[in-house]
Amino acid sequence: MDASTQTSPSGAVRAETITRYADLLVRLGANVQPGQIVEVAGTPAHAPLVRAAADAAYRAGARYVDARYFDPQVRRARIVHAPAAEALEFVPAWERERVLALGEERCARVVLTPLLPPGLFDDLDAGLVAREPLPSLPESLQIVMAETTNWTAAPAPEPLWATRVHPDLPADEALARLWEDVEHVCRLDEPDPEQAWRTRFAQLAEPTGRLNEARFDALHFRGPGTDLTVGLFPTSRWTSGRATTVAGIEHSPNLPTEELFTAPDPSRADGVVTSTRPLVLKSGARVDGLVVRFEGGRAVDVQADAGLDALRALLGRDEGATRLGEVALVDGDSRVGALDTVFWSTLLDENAASHLALGHAYPRTVGEGERQRANRSEIHVDFMIGGDDVEVTALARDGSSVPVLRGGAWAL
Amino acid sequence: MDASTQTSPSGAVRAETITRYADLLVRLGANVQPGQIVEVAGTPAHAPLVRAAADAAYRAGARYVDARYFDPQVRRARIVHAPAAEALEFVPAWERERVLALGEERCARVVLTPLLPPGLFDDLDAGLVAREPLPSLPESLQIVMAETTNWTAAPAPEPLWATRVHPDLPADEALARLWEDVEHVCRLDEPDPEQAWRTRFAQLAEPTGRLNEARFDALHFRGPGTDLTVGLFPTSRWTSGRATTVAGIEHSPNLPTEELFTAPDPSRADGVVTSTRPLVLKSGARVDGLVVRFEGGRAVDVQADAGLDALRALLGRDEGATRLGEVALVDGDSRVGALDTVFWSTLLDENAASHLALGHAYPRTVGEGERQRANRSEIHVDFMIGGDDVEVTALARDGSSVPVLRGGAWAL
Repeated sequence: MDASTQTSPSGAVRAETITRYADLLVRLGANVQPGQIVEVAGTPAHAPLVRAAADAAYRAGARYVDARYFDPQVRRARIVHAPAAEALEFVPAWERERVLALGEERCARVVLTPLLPPGLFDDLDAGLVAREPLPSLPESLQIVMAETTNWTAAPAPEPLWATRVHPDLPADEALARLWEDVEHVCRLDEPDPEQAWRTRFAQLAEPTGRLNEARFDALHFRGPGTDLTVGLFPTSRWTSGRATTVAGIEHSPNLPTEELFTAPDPSRADGVVTSTRPLVLKSGARVDGLVVRFEGGRAVDVQADAGLDALRALLGRDEGATRLGEVALVDGDSRVGALDTVFWSTLLDENAASHLALGHAYPRTVGEGERQRANRSEIHVDFMIGGDDVEVTALARDGSSVPVLRGGAWAL
Repeated sequence: MDASTQTSPSGAVRAETITRYADLLVRLGANVQPGQIVEVAGTPAHAPLVRAAADAAYRAGARYVDARYFDPQVRRARIVHAPAAEALEFVPAWERERVLALGEERCARVVLTPLLPPGLFDDLDAGLVAREPLPSLPESLQIVMAETTNWTAAPAPEPLWATRVHPDLPADEALARLWEDVEHVCRLDEPDPEQAWRTRFAQLAEPTGRLNEARFDALHFRGPGTDLTVGLFPTSRWTSGRATTVAGIEHSPNLPTEELFTAPDPSRADGVVTSTRPLVLKSGARVDGLVVRFEGGRAVDVQADAGLDALRALLGRDEGATRLGEVALVDGDSRVGALDTVFWSTLLDENAASHLALGHAYPRTVGEGERQRANRSEIHVDFMIGGDDVEVTALARDGSSVPVLRGGAWAL
């Protein structure tokens, strides 16, 4: 009956898969509770999955679904016609107030990514692109860090993204192929995806538990172009898979999720690190060949083959933007990593390999006594530094060293 | 480059037409001023025109475009899964606050219609459908009546609507045909559409001026199933074509617009009136064969062949919902009327024929001294009562009668 859905580009995937995926996102992902207001965010190209997620949320007892379409083409028009760079910074107060209200009202959120298709902004001035704040307002990071909403971010294939990931295929095949990738990394190809994820969460819990018991003093990364030591707090807490809101609702902030992560000591990072995969900023800008040198926790030198201006604009945002807020380990069993595909999407690419994040730390990854020392910033930018040829070694407080990852496998 | 646009259903029309239409809506329609925030509202099926209007608005100097996609399929899911009728009434406070902010900030608005495709809700309980308030919140009517925003509402073809208007054509042809209809009624087929509209506004200004000079006491409608007298205020002001905001910005609230309208005296309507075209409520419900009997200005009996429950739910909203807020005259030169097509959309159908509206009156259509007596309500529902076989006669204050419309032509 709905011709707009039938002729939609997402027709590359069966309606049954869309429904199955929507249920996973609403139940395991955001874990929508009866009576909650639920935001479902996507682009017009994501309409079939937005609708399926809204339907799943109402079936789960949602009080109201706020289907929030962000249009990256309208953002593009704004940047193209901007009379001056400063003009791009304005956002109506109601946009910021609404994000804060999502936290105050303890809402659930399902965010389909990418909201900014990779490639769409490549031909524009990177400094201008970085200046336009939407769709990721500082208020969004604020409610994530406050842990007031039960949420999930998950990949939603669409044509522009698909042709970037699989540039050698015709558009239709690229989209079908990207859907296959997403079905695989989100474990929709398992008989019971929710159970498959609970099994994977249990696997990830093992090294997570050992790292938390050992309370190492630092991690050392060594590989091609990388020789970096990252200091940890005595109370740095490793986390994986699930998160819990202040109201006690368990959820999976990212699907897929293959990482163990914690907050490092922002005053102790020293050495050089070379990114192992490209990085796509929330502004849509792409950063290739990133090399960062740290001294005393601070990124004192940042180089890149491409995208440096956009990254520097972000790093200039505040003092914490040049220090680390997250260190994350990903093993070789990651389904994302095994595909050996560059997805041009942080959500997927960060789950392919160990990574660091510049900017704000997740408060729950540090003990209360040291939480004030965890890094603070308006930004949180993950960049991938791991791979089979990057060794990760832990340095214990007694001076001994313990292998953590060797050839992509846990050595711990 | 944008595959989602290329494969969009709106591909039935040339990109050039979309751009031309968007420019008309932004310039003649909303008359966007440099520095304004501009809302562009549509559905995901309207994406190409939403994007073109956003682009046109930025070219016109907009400070920020709030592209606001409303998804009627998500509204449908809500109604289908509603645990109880009352549950449908809830709307997050931020939705209402944002609409009021559009007025407070003196924003411009471009609204693409229909936001609720006719037919999409036909198989659902009409009482439930009428209970779900979106996308037309009372706050939206409030800012229209306050004349704080310069705005336009205009038709935007999409597949569901097209198949309802042209049910005998294959889907693709129906959409192409509806685009042809819209190009014609919006005068996009003229060499200079903006100039063509200014010429039509001048034509409409002639009878408008004569009605305002004459200050008739009442209008009498006589036709098949219709014998109704509608009283006018001594200060009822006839209006056509253009409106002006409190800040003095001229705009065209509706495109197309073919009507002369004013506010009647809500205490003086007597007789029976039979609608000459079907009515589609904002809730999406359709009302056929409407017959209303008025006594002392009040609709004391309302009958219909279909859709009566949905209409009655609206009429029960408040006291003013059963009284008249508008009487409008449309002559036979209307391009909409000449097509002799039922568009299942009030915006178009009301411009095909003379009509009445139950509910709130436009304040500017009554002199200040009598403005307090104009009808007030949360609703404003237009229904068509005119046609070539409906005679309209004015009753002067001296008791004489003057023909106004005969056979669709001005007799005034």
